[in-house]
Order: sequence, then structure tokens, then C-alpha cells
Amino acid sequence: MAKAFEFWFDFGSPASYLAHTQVAALAQATGAQAQYRPMLLGGVFQATGNHSPATIAAKGAYTFIDFDRFAARYHVPLNRNPHFPINTLTLMRGAVGLQLREPDRFMPYVDAVFRAIWVDALNLNDPAVVGAVLQAAGFDPAALLALTQDAQVKDRLKAVTQEAVERGVFGAPTFFVGSQMFWGQDRIDFVKQALEAHP
Amino acid sequence: MAKAFEFWFDFGSPASYLAHTQVAALAQATGAQAQYRPMLLGGVFQATGNHSPATIAAKGAYTFIDFDRFAARYHVPLNRNPHFPINTLTLMRGAVGLQLREPDRFMPYVDAVFRAIWVDALNLNDPAVVGAVLQAAGFDPAALLALTQDAQVKDRLKAVTQEAVERGVFGAPTFFVGSQMFWGQDRIDFVKQALEAHP
Repeated sequence: MAKAFEFWFDFGSPASYLAHTQVAALAQATGAQAQYRPMLLGGVFQATGNHSPATIAAKGAYTFIDFDRFAARYHVPLNRNPHFPINTLTLMRGAVGLQLREPDRFMPYVDAVFRAIWVDALNLNDPAVVGAVLQAAGFDPAALLALTQDAQVKDRLKAVTQEAVERGVFGAPTFFVGSQMFWGQDRIDFVKQALEAHP
Repeated sequence: MAKAFEFWFDFGSPASYLAHTQVAALAQATGAQAQYRPMLLGGVFQATGNHSPATIAAKGAYTFIDFDRFAARYHVPLNRNPHFPINTLTLMRGAVGLQLREPDRFMPYVDAVFRAIWVDALNLNDPAVVGAVLQAAGFDPAALLALTQDAQVKDRLKAVTQEAVERGVFGAPTFFVGSQMFWGQDRIDFVKQALEAHP
């Protein structure tokens, strides 16, 4: 079996965006396959009792300073989104829907949505803005919206979010190397170490 | 003014212990003075609304796995304390009391208490165990207990904990380089970078 790691994420999480910017380099450096696992972070929070750091004022303020430091270290753009938090239910359904039905279009979608939220700081709570972002990225917004309303897609997002919770996920991003779990975009070095330990 | 960094901690925090094991090396590598700042983490949590990760079952379980990974990276011993959480009010009063009255004895005290909790996994909720630990470290337990009951010492711990909250602290350990705040034993590399940026 090829060496692989799982990358569990939600578009609404700036740490997930930061990690996403590093996943390709991690895969390349380790020769491991990156397996993107979309999940609904709100569902994970509900199931585990965990909360966004933004719910604690002092922690929320610091968290963005910390993310800025990592963005500088990674040399990637990151902008605070004034519309945060974004309700990502439809966006995450789009991600699992494309994985099911059009896997080749999954990564362009992921790139476009992460960029819209965390680089262009757009209001993806607004369906019109989502439509414009998708159109600019070469998608048919109406077809994608229909996909997110598909019962199989809705059920799939519920099932994978439940899988995440059962495996111990409580936040995003979360990496797995086999059964070893790593929480946070700041644990990529440990993920790399785990992949290198099992060639 | 000599280059310096502040290290805010509470004995009850395993991440504070891990950071403590690295502080001397950080000071040596950067030529900066380490300023130990004891605080009452419970007071910080109360003031900010923050909570220990241990209050979320999945997060609490993971956190200790994460600490074990850092202990291995740092090549330092770390053992889970079955008596966790430890009520550290008296222990932190001892720390600020020694800083006020016997500063030369502060660091041996800090070393002894951290080691008792996070290496020897002792029950420092038990005053008899605390007494034995202090005696073994060359302290007079009765004199130290009297120090922790001193009104000036009690007020000092309240005041410094309030100072921490006012400066944005919400967890432990927290480092400051001037006004730049860094939360977590996993941010020592950023602290180092900040110290190196201002020679």
C-alpha cells in the first residue's frame, strides 16, 4: 500500500487554510499521498463539546496573530475575514459531493473556496458571492448547488463527520498517519516525522 | 537594557513544565535573560472564560499524546499525573513568595515542584506530600507554608495574575518578548526568532 496521510479540514478554519497551503509540499517531501477529508467542523464541535477559540475573546484575538506569524513563515497570503465565522455546511457538502461525483474537480474547488475566504476575505455566507466565486473558478454554480442538495451527498458529509468524531477528531485541521492523530497546522513537522519513520 | 523574555507559568500545566525544561537553553542560545512569572492559571481561566483542554474529553486525551511527542523531541521525562488537576494556589503563592523574599531559592523551588508533579507524578494536592517534596529539596516546609499565608504574598499572586489577564494571557505557558505574546510551549521557536530579531 502506498504511503499516505489524511488531512481533515473545514473551509471555515483559518488553520485548515494554512495547512492546505503546506499539504502539497508535505506530500512531495515525504513521497506520501495526501488524502483530503472534508468534514463539518461545526458537527465535530457539537459532538465533542469543543468550541472555536474565537469564543474566548483573548484567545480569539491571539489566534489570528499566531496565524499571521505562520503565514509569514510559510510565505503565503492570509487575510482576516470580516464575515467570520462562515457557515460552511453547503461548502463542505460541495466538497464531499465533488469527491463522490467529480473527483478531478475536487482540488480546484478546494483551492477556490479556501482562497475566497482566507485570501480574498469574501462573504461566503452570501449565496450570490459563492456563485460568483465558483463561476470564476470554472464551475456551474447551479449544478454545484444542486449537488449540495443531493440526499446522498448530505448523508455522506454526516457520515464522514461522524467518522472523524469516532476517530478522536475534535478540531481542524487534523492529520492522520495510520492511527496516529495530529491536531493543528502547527504539527506538520510531526506528521512529516511520522511519515519518514515508516518508509 | 539587557535583552529578556518573560515566561508565565503555573505548576499545574504540563505544557508549562515542558517549556520550563527548555527555558535555560533558550536563554543561553539567545543571550537573553529569562524572567519567570508565576501566575494562577485558574484565575486566568476564570477571568477570560477559557478552560483547560482537559474539559473536552477528546481534546484532553490528545493533549497528553501531543505532550509525550514533545517530551521525546526535547529528550526530557514527562509522566502523566493521576492526581491531575492539581490545585496550585498554595504552590503558586510559594513561588511568588520566594521571588519576593528569597529570590535565590526561587529556581530550586520551581525545579522541585515541576519535577514532583510531572516527573514523579506525586499528589501535590496532599499537604503531607508537598511537605516531603520541599524537605527533600532543602526547604523548611513549615516556613514555606507560613510564607504562603502571608497577606502580601497572597495579594502579590492576585496582582500578577491580574497583570497577566490585562496583558492578554489566557493560558499557560505564555511568553512575552516586549509586548509580543506567544502562547504555548510549542512556540519557543517563535520566541527565539523574536529575540534574535532584536539584538
